[in-house]
Amino acid sequence: MQRTPPARVGDHPSDVQTPALLVDLDTLDDNIASMAHQATAAGLALRPHAKTHKSVAIARRQLLEGAAGLCCQKVSEAEALLESGVEDMLISNHIVAAQPLRRMAALARRLRITTLIAESAQIDLLAAAADYAGATIEVLVEIDAGDRRMGVADSEAILGLAEEVERRHGLHFRGLQAYNGPLQHLREQEERSHAAREAAHRAATLRDRLERRGIACPLITGGGTGSFATDLATGAFTEIQPGSYVFMDLDYGRNRTGEDEPYQPFRQSLFVLSTVINRAPRGAVYVDAGAKALNLDCGPPDVWGSAGLAYTKASDEQGRIEIAPGTLPPQLGEQLLLIPSHCDPTVNLFDWMVGIRGDRVEEVWPIEARGCLS
Amino acid sequence: MQRTPPARVGDHPSDVQTPALLVDLDTLDDNIASMAHQATAAGLALRPHAKTHKSVAIARRQLLEGAAGLCCQKVSEAEALLESGVEDMLISNHIVAAQPLRRMAALARRLRITTLIAESAQIDLLAAAADYAGATIEVLVEIDAGDRRMGVADSEAILGLAEEVERRHGLHFRGLQAYNGPLQHLREQEERSHAAREAAHRAATLRDRLERRGIACPLITGGGTGSFATDLATGAFTEIQPGSYVFMDLDYGRNRTGEDEPYQPFRQSLFVLSTVINRAPRGAVYVDAGAKALNLDCGPPDVWGSAGLAYTKASDEQGRIEIAPGTLPPQLGEQLLLIPSHCDPTVNLFDWMVGIRGDRVEEVWPIEARGCLS
Repeated sequence: MQRTPPARVGDHPSDVQTPALLVDLDTLDDNIASMAHQATAAGLALRPHAKTHKSVAIARRQLLEGAAGLCCQKVSEAEALLESGVEDMLISNHIVAAQPLRRMAALARRLRITTLIAESAQIDLLAAAADYAGATIEVLVEIDAGDRRMGVADSEAILGLAEEVERRHGLHFRGLQAYNGPLQHLREQEERSHAAREAAHRAATLRDRLERRGIACPLITGGGTGSFATDLATGAFTEIQPGSYVFMDLDYGRNRTGEDEPYQPFRQSLFVLSTVINRAPRGAVYVDAGAKALNLDCGPPDVWGSAGLAYTKASDEQGRIEIAPGTLPPQLGEQLLLIPSHCDPTVNLFDWMVGIRGDRVEEVWPIEARGCLS
Repeated sequence: MQRTPPARVGDHPSDVQTPALLVDLDTLDDNIASMAHQATAAGLALRPHAKTHKSVAIARRQLLEGAAGLCCQKVSEAEALLESGVEDMLISNHIVAAQPLRRMAALARRLRITTLIAESAQIDLLAAAADYAGATIEVLVEIDAGDRRMGVADSEAILGLAEEVERRHGLHFRGLQAYNGPLQHLREQEERSHAAREAAHRAATLRDRLERRGIACPLITGGGTGSFATDLATGAFTEIQPGSYVFMDLDYGRNRTGEDEPYQPFRQSLFVLSTVINRAPRGAVYVDAGAKALNLDCGPPDVWGSAGLAYTKASDEQGRIEIAPGTLPPQLGEQLLLIPSHCDPTVNLFDWMVGIRGDRVEEVWPIEARGCLS
């Protein structure tokens, strides 16, 4: 890992060693408060997804603003984020291998742990792990929320799984996970809202059927930064689990909003600070941030505040910035702020996050759960 | 970081916690020996690029097999790899920011440090840093090797830079860097060879002109895993700096070889071990390795040894594996070996590398320079 932090508290941003992950703290605070406020106003719980930031400090801020708990995707993320003081952690994933199961059950002795299932074999695995640890693991059945991915489509199978969980010692049925990932990135607001309402309707129908069978379904969770406004209004979800809203990225920025959701309340707080290291080619310069400092699955980053500069190509350690005619060329050593196209996997490339307020480094946070893969 | 290693020495591979980076040690050893042997047979020095593996243990093996030194891309990588015992490190990049310059000059008091320039302003920066540290920094001029990227195209400018370096206290002109990255991935062997010969010819012409001016040019370095056979035969290079040959990947595997280079002597040694965590959808399963465990810039990974299984789509933490009709579906909890499409940035996602020999974990290596960005 990068042993020395890229900055010290009190530094000027121009002293930060690049490439570095920068967070504008005023905007981060605004984003955290805005989502918390909107969830509270709608009467829903907020369970922010910590896979986005992987940071104890940001998790603490979310919990202080009233978050009901956190989500994460891996048992090792949950372990790394314990220090935040979280008491209710949803591992919104399917844990089936022996060692992660043991580690998850051990965690369940210390705090409330909930996880997902999609088939009966998982119930046996979870029950054995819970029994061995003398713990209770809470269980959500993941339903197909319209994306035909990891959720169960067949309604009778979902009801059967819930009943089976209820019968098992060491397990407790808590409700349904109804998360549709691809819908978050549908560009038109009406399309996103339609898909989100379908997912919510399906979850509500299943909850009603469960309750008619005498099975309580206190939790219906799902939703994300792309659909949260619709999710809050459906009446089906009891909580939402957005992650990217704390930082935003180019991809979420490309979502258009419509009449039902007239404004986008979140602003870009996350940047990769880079330095111009080469101006050998004509009409272009190179910066020191390439594919090891930026996830490029959703395209190249934008250069902040410079319409005439375009990041066009990345090698592993460098990025090529094309200079439009009439644009002042960046100087050697000049720092350029880049806006990542996809925040989650970009954060996962860094060991440190540098928090800026005004023109001062106010925080240098380790990214505790970076690289927590298993 | 992932605090606990994913395996212990002596484990069976099926005990490894996934997703994990696996290295087949027999193949790794063969690849290291093969490149060393071929460079020696051609009478050239081998300076393996450590940006690929970022590992002290692998660097040591390369040095033991006779490597003349190492390359890396960042000052922090050089710092992290000191433990390998390297005595001659080329930082094959342009270091222009104040703190990396200071750190590089401090390293130059401990071992031979060489780096690149492409313009006169860099000479001032390097000389000031070397003077301040009381060290000598060796300098290569990066020439445009045909890719119109970070190298200098104008011959007079190159000669002028070399002369200017020679005049400066604390600096020593060592030669030319002639690396053409894109040519490494040209699919047809004849195209690769042609481009590699052009780069070598250009470097040799410049060396001759430098020597006619009384400037010694002892080092001409460049070349990579895609072009090494041609690079070794040109008579221009004094050393080659390939990196990926230790591991290989799908992208390099797509290079075709021709009559001049009748065989590909390197085999795939690097894998991402994953676990099937969900089989809810029809005709597909999900594994626990997504965009945070695999760089996808060169496409999805292949599933090792399973023609009927195709990794078709990644989310951040999961991968979808489509099952061709007639193929036995993988079981829940079954491990699948994936072949990364691009080795360097995939290695950079992991904190640990698990070395397998036969059916036993023989090594668990920390990836010391992972995340060394500045």
